[in-house]
Amino acid sequence: MTFPPHDPRLDRQLQFLLELDRLKGILRQTRVLDGARQENSAEHSWHLALCAAVLAEHAPPGTNLGRALQMVLVHDVVEIDAGDAFCYDAAANLGKEEREQAAARRIFGLLPDEQADELRGLWEEFEAGATPDARFAVALDRFQPILLNFSGEGGSWRANAVRHDQVLARMAPIQQGMPGVWPFVVRLLDEAVARGYLAPAPESIPDSEKQHL
Amino acid sequence: MTFPPHDPRLDRQLQFLLELDRLKGILRQTRVLDGARQENSAEHSWHLALCAAVLAEHAPPGTNLGRALQMVLVHDVVEIDAGDAFCYDAAANLGKEEREQAAARRIFGLLPDEQADELRGLWEEFEAGATPDARFAVALDRFQPILLNFSGEGGSWRANAVRHDQVLARMAPIQQGMPGVWPFVVRLLDEAVARGYLAPAPESIPDSEKQHL
Repeated sequence: MTFPPHDPRLDRQLQFLLELDRLKGILRQTRVLDGARQENSAEHSWHLALCAAVLAEHAPPGTNLGRALQMVLVHDVVEIDAGDAFCYDAAANLGKEEREQAAARRIFGLLPDEQADELRGLWEEFEAGATPDARFAVALDRFQPILLNFSGEGGSWRANAVRHDQVLARMAPIQQGMPGVWPFVVRLLDEAVARGYLAPAPESIPDSEKQHL
Repeated sequence: MTFPPHDPRLDRQLQFLLELDRLKGILRQTRVLDGARQENSAEHSWHLALCAAVLAEHAPPGTNLGRALQMVLVHDVVEIDAGDAFCYDAAANLGKEEREQAAARRIFGLLPDEQADELRGLWEEFEAGATPDARFAVALDRFQPILLNFSGEGGSWRANAVRHDQVLARMAPIQQGMPGVWPFVVRLLDEAVARGYLAPAPESIPDSEKQHL
């Protein structure tokens, strides 16, 4: 976008902010609650940020809410170039890390250098998931789709025949990132199987029923 | 939504977070940059939060970025009940304050009491626009549509025959909330008129041309 001539630093900031608009067109597997359409990664990121604000009491000791908010706000911007790979689709996730690293260089690189370093650093910290802020942010990113899928009577779980054992493994970071919420997650996933929202794990199916599968 | 029995405090937090999902279905006049559809208030709020993070150096002295982020994240949630009134449509704005106050009571009231008070307080502070955090947040809320409308060759301005004097008056809070950005805003709106994205103010039209209007 060409603006009338102005401060070059502000121009780099605005080019980045305009580029972000494209995240509104990146669709996730998860559906919004009225079921009418898939959620996009921009509104997902907003929802996560509000989850962070409301569930901050469950964050690990030492979490800085302001940093965690910025982390969830930027955690998906690489999808503008790399797309959203469905977490239960192994093929779609091949080469994901390289694609996302290249996207991070290009997109955060639109910013003035020190801001590029700062926001790209937050994204890398999220990806590594090793600090209190990142553990909390990652836990929220796992937790929000559970809320939508359970409330949407299965949502993207049912649409993709996802199994309980797959979701439980995927949710494991919640144990560290929001330990107080973990017992609820375990109960909710059990209930999701009981209600038919989520397929049971293979080993939980009684032998007498396996012949029907 | 009925979850399996769990902690009542967490349940109130989750009912609030689920209710927020509806903001993804509230449409604004502004269009996303590819022009294919209207922007919704959830993704708009995400975009504002990133504007806050990137443009923080332009905030008034004393601004707390973490609070300003939370403020822009919640600033539109009342629209779940009250809808989005187009700012240049006087009729649509009649009774808006009462509708939004009732919405704030209901929606924030889903939360545990002290969290309801805290987030509703942030929303009221935004509405009053009198603190540094609120001045910055309000300025961002005015600035982001300029970026989209200018880059979208007029966007909702052109679609609604909005005039330069209307936008300039609406943008006035940017003078206090992001003073360093104001000269750019003035230049951009002049350029928008020159390019035909925005209608000229009536008094700026030479008398010789008025007969053609």
